[in-house]
Amino acid sequence: MLKYGVIGFGYWGPNLVRVLNTAERSMVRYVCDARDHRRELAERMYPTTKVVTDHRELLADPDVDVIAIATPVSTHSQLAMEALEAGKHVFVEKPLTATSEEARQVVEMARATNRTVFVDHTFVYTEAVRKIADLIDNQELGELLYYDSTRVNLGLFQHDVNVIWDLVVHDLAILDRITLHPPTSVMAIASSPIPNQHESIAYVTLFYEKNFIAHVHASWLSPVKIRQALIGGTRRMIVYDDLEPSEKIKIYDKGVELVHDPAESYALQVGYRSGDMVSPMINPYEALANAVNHANASFLEGVQPITNGDTGYQVVRILEAANQSAQQGGRRIDLT
Amino acid sequence: MLKYGVIGFGYWGPNLVRVLNTAERSMVRYVCDARDHRRELAERMYPTTKVVTDHRELLADPDVDVIAIATPVSTHSQLAMEALEAGKHVFVEKPLTATSEEARQVVEMARATNRTVFVDHTFVYTEAVRKIADLIDNQELGELLYYDSTRVNLGLFQHDVNVIWDLVVHDLAILDRITLHPPTSVMAIASSPIPNQHESIAYVTLFYEKNFIAHVHASWLSPVKIRQALIGGTRRMIVYDDLEPSEKIKIYDKGVELVHDPAESYALQVGYRSGDMVSPMINPYEALANAVNHANASFLEGVQPITNGDTGYQVVRILEAANQSAQQGGRRIDLT
Amino acid sequence: MLKYGVIGFGYWGPNLVRVLNTAERSMVRYVCDARDHRRELAERMYPTTKVVTDHRELLADPDVDVIAIATPVSTHSQLAMEALEAGKHVFVEKPLTATSEEARQVVEMARATNRTVFVDHTFVYTEAVRKIADLIDNQELGELLYYDSTRVNLGLFQHDVNVIWDLVVHDLAILDRITLHPPTSVMAIASSPIPNQHESIAYVTLFYEKNFIAHVHASWLSPVKIRQALIGGTRRMIVYDDLEPSEKIKIYDKGVELVHDPAESYALQVGYRSGDMVSPMINPYEALANAVNHANASFLEGVQPITNGDTGYQVVRILEAANQSAQQGGRRIDLT
Amino acid sequence: MLKYGVIGFGYWGPNLVRVLNTAERSMVRYVCDARDHRRELAERMYPTTKVVTDHRELLADPDVDVIAIATPVSTHSQLAMEALEAGKHVFVEKPLTATSEEARQVVEMARATNRTVFVDHTFVYTEAVRKIADLIDNQELGELLYYDSTRVNLGLFQHDVNVIWDLVVHDLAILDRITLHPPTSVMAIASSPIPNQHESIAYVTLFYEKNFIAHVHASWLSPVKIRQALIGGTRRMIVYDDLEPSEKIKIYDKGVELVHDPAESYALQVGYRSGDMVSPMINPYEALANAVNHANASFLEGVQPITNGDTGYQVVRILEAANQSAQQGGRRIDLT
Repeated sequence: MLKYGVIGFGYWGPNLVRVLNTAERSMVRYVCDARDHRRELAERMYPTTKVVTDHRELLADPDVDVIAIATPVSTHSQLAMEALEAGKHVFVEKPLTATSEEARQVVEMARATNRTVFVDHTFVYTEAVRKIADLIDNQELGELLYYDSTRVNLGLFQHDVNVIWDLVVHDLAILDRITLHPPTSVMAIASSPIPNQHESIAYVTLFYEKNFIAHVHASWLSPVKIRQALIGGTRRMIVYDDLEPSEKIKIYDKGVELVHDPAESYALQVGYRSGDMVSPMINPYEALANAVNHANASFLEGVQPITNGDTGYQVVRILEAANQSAQQGGRRIDLT
Repeated sequence: MLKYGVIGFGYWGPNLVRVLNTAERSMVRYVCDARDHRRELAERMYPTTKVVTDHRELLADPDVDVIAIATPVSTHSQLAMEALEAGKHVFVEKPLTATSEEARQVVEMARATNRTVFVDHTFVYTEAVRKIADLIDNQELGELLYYDSTRVNLGLFQHDVNVIWDLVVHDLAILDRITLHPPTSVMAIASSPIPNQHESIAYVTLFYEKNFIAHVHASWLSPVKIRQALIGGTRRMIVYDDLEPSEKIKIYDKGVELVHDPAESYALQVGYRSGDMVSPMINPYEALANAVNHANASFLEGVQPITNGDTGYQVVRILEAANQSAQQGGRRIDLT
Repeated sequence: MLKYGVIGFGYWGPNLVRVLNTAERSMVRYVCDARDHRRELAERMYPTTKVVTDHRELLADPDVDVIAIATPVSTHSQLAMEALEAGKHVFVEKPLTATSEEARQVVEMARATNRTVFVDHTFVYTEAVRKIADLIDNQELGELLYYDSTRVNLGLFQHDVNVIWDLVVHDLAILDRITLHPPTSVMAIASSPIPNQHESIAYVTLFYEKNFIAHVHASWLSPVKIRQALIGGTRRMIVYDDLEPSEKIKIYDKGVELVHDPAESYALQVGYRSGDMVSPMINPYEALANAVNHANASFLEGVQPITNGDTGYQVVRILEAANQSAQQGGRRIDLT
Repeated sequence: MLKYGVIGFGYWGPNLVRVLNTAERSMVRYVCDARDHRRELAERMYPTTKVVTDHRELLADPDVDVIAIATPVSTHSQLAMEALEAGKHVFVEKPLTATSEEARQVVEMARATNRTVFVDHTFVYTEAVRKIADLIDNQELGELLYYDSTRVNLGLFQHDVNVIWDLVVHDLAILDRITLHPPTSVMAIASSPIPNQHESIAYVTLFYEKNFIAHVHASWLSPVKIRQALIGGTRRMIVYDDLEPSEKIKIYDKGVELVHDPAESYALQVGYRSGDMVSPMINPYEALANAVNHANASFLEGVQPITNGDTGYQVVRILEAANQSAQQGGRRIDLT
């Protein structure tokens, strides 16, 4: 049974504590938050859990195995470094850190202390993304041609990050899971139509070896919420709509193939193939519970989780480059 | 009553002849096509119309007022120039020409011969786009912030043009109608995952003065057909779905505004406004009939149509620049 | 090659002539209509077809094989009887006749003259219904439990028939195709909220042997158009939405089964099964073309079509009983 | 501040306790449940609430103002009677009782003891139904013509009641709210295709004075969940889809009107009117919280709630008659 100390009891913290306590192999010993009213809430909700102000209490207690970090991203690096130095495993909310340099240091520290870092890219643990990844792993789509994601809604404007860091991060984690190689370059365009606010509209394009291309449209300024991705392969294509209650994934047996036109034998013609559509049953398990179970198994069995420190580093590195591209008017940034 | 000679009786020609004959102020005197089987079809369908092989017959007949050009785009320029020189008005399918230089020459020739060029950017004449343009003209959306269009489907791969020329052209014509000023620069990314075929996936971004930004995702490789645009203003936002049978336009009384947070008086906060959604009734008139009526009125009354030679030139110039950007890996191309 | 004489060139007549002429094994020799402006239209559209006022010309011409009847339903019986007596096959629009007694006489006359009657229950020839019928014929749904159809829209109010005769007729034809036995009784409730107009809202329930039940909600007073049927079997269930452009049929691998609850061994519990959903590819063939091809084959090969005179009689008989039930406030009418 | 004693801590009880504790004018003093594991759960969740086995403890405590009953329906009557006799107000889950005779007795007892009965027909307190009721109260729809509800899904089969008592009860409560007069008769058809189980498919029709008609299709055997009602008036029509996340209500400015056709002056023709559609903003308040606030105000201020004992009696009376009709094969049951 892993004992957790959770730092940060804001928006996400209560979910985390609930799921860590519900999971078979973990429980929460400490909740830490600097704000009085959040500590009071934690005390009311979990009378038997220690609720403290100073995170060093958690680090000092040998009965704590894992530090879970659910604080603003600017503090992730410092807290993760301290936790690793104290010999704890780290369960950290996405993104891993605010800069790739910080991420690199955390990864090195984890290696040096022989501890494990789990980055909570929750979307990777949804049953829908798991199913998509399985299909791709099993070559059901053929060679991947494109990933196109629309991730838009009205608000919420974040104070500390722009829309790239807030929303595109999810697609980067999903792409890390379903592609074999990291992108080779990135371009981003960002618009900031609300004065004195972070960029709220972004178009991020990722280039890969071969023909695969990925594109993400993220916005805090859409009148409707859309969470839709088109994923195309040479054999099949997927429409993934995360807002669909029961048919999140539709697999189209459609494709394009080059055919020899007998009438014009010199030329290759494009032919179309169109078959059935299948919407596979998706288990109704909660993504955060899947993530916690996977993290717990990784900590206990000493293996690297799917979304480990390196994953977190890759994602932060691309976010950083995308931001840099956006600042430079869409210049293509090399990632190799 | 305007007498038309129609050159080209392929995919679009029959529609054109039907609507020109149905319209109150026009009729078709000639149909011209180089292909035997298309001429035979025209003769069967319109026994009283002259069906000829050589377009010069149409140009030589003083009883022809307008030459309608529905041939492949590479021939538009030559046919339009000859028609204008022969003193005819020109009704030409989109895009106006294959290059901006050709478009410039056609515009000049029209001016020199005092004839009128109508470019059939049909989408501009749909009742849905007319309603959107009215709303914007009447300041119902406030200041425009963005236009985001998804225009994807499976196929058809074109032989003579890529997906930018095939699909993005529609959005450029719509943008020309609803914006006061042309874009100042363009960036395009295009992918060509099917070997030896034109680019079939494209992302085109248009930059304008002030904060307005436009983006078009066009693809021939999507498993589902999508024709959706999000149009955001400071006061209201629109979702325009051209595939919706009865509710093509939804106007959301939603917005973002900066508010002074009394608790933190030094800082501006982002506030959200959310009201009713209205889907206005759209008349069921055929877009091509609207276009023909508008063209006929322009020719007869000697006024410039909404989609005139200059419009056609602007659209071709941007298509050309977008293509150039795509060839150069997404470099931003200045349009001023 | 079958030669048709078509009586009635109103709303449906032009479609019929177009498809009969396009089909491989038929062509239209005559069009007959009593109204001057409809004959003029027919002459313009089909210069080489004989256009006449008196249907007896068609009956008298030995070169006519089939009489197609596309006139108001009150005239179907008389025209069909004359055509059969003249030795012609009959292709008649739905419903076969205005009363079951008339339908019975037509069936008898067809038997006596050894001619074939085809009733154009077009829906039965849609690719979607064909697929559904195939699935049921192949026991893919298991035992049928229910058929529930919603067939509503705004208008059009018919002058000669109420909403049962106008809309429910389609479901009766589909049910005739997919069930092995006719219904044993019928109940109908109809409402007529618009003064002096036919009933415009109807709920028709059909009872069958065993547990199968069918229900149709038909209305001319719905703000939205709905064409949706739920079809449930013990093994699978179907949602059939005729307005869906590409996914008209969804087959759910869902069901209910009785299971022994080990904890309460005395009682049977209801268990649920939930698997994938499959939306099969539907061919894009036009239903009327399918119907004409099937009718032509039946006439030429001397076999009974799927929607033959007996089918037409059954449907009219049920419509008549449903009307009777509605007039009597929903009393159950025996059909055996 | 009203003190509640809650009897029954099963499926709905925990929600009730949470909301009663959160509401401004109420708190929960007791939770009562006969089952050990439910009491243990209650103790863990609410350490400061008294958790007891015998409901008579609640009745005996003068500090308890209201008894909330969330037990199986067969026990409602007995518990409500005891609570009223003990001088408590009653907050009872729907339906009020298992028979109309029981309901009548509860209403009489409430009158005799001068206490108030609130029946938790929660749907009436959804923001969507509140908006619909407001529109109807304000004559925005004109004269009501019909209410047509489809309330279907797969499972859950109930052990104690059939699908009429489980699902149609919601529509009866909504209809009670939006109609001025109760129905005059009811017909119901129910099917029970799963052996030895309650009826799982039902069609219930309610007849009213004038032309208004209501119909409910309820089923536990549908592969998809549908919660849709069409509500038609002479001036406007509503589509209410309770599963739509953001546009639950669509108000169509559509209608049918009788017009004098100038060409045929003797006859009234049906004309159609079609205008904009408006989807009003719906507040995101929880229905149960609305219900509790309204109940608390009713108890404290001594006024009758919207869903009072009489409402509960009317609903039970119609459920009973619908059941009776279904047992008799759909015979129409008089309700006057």
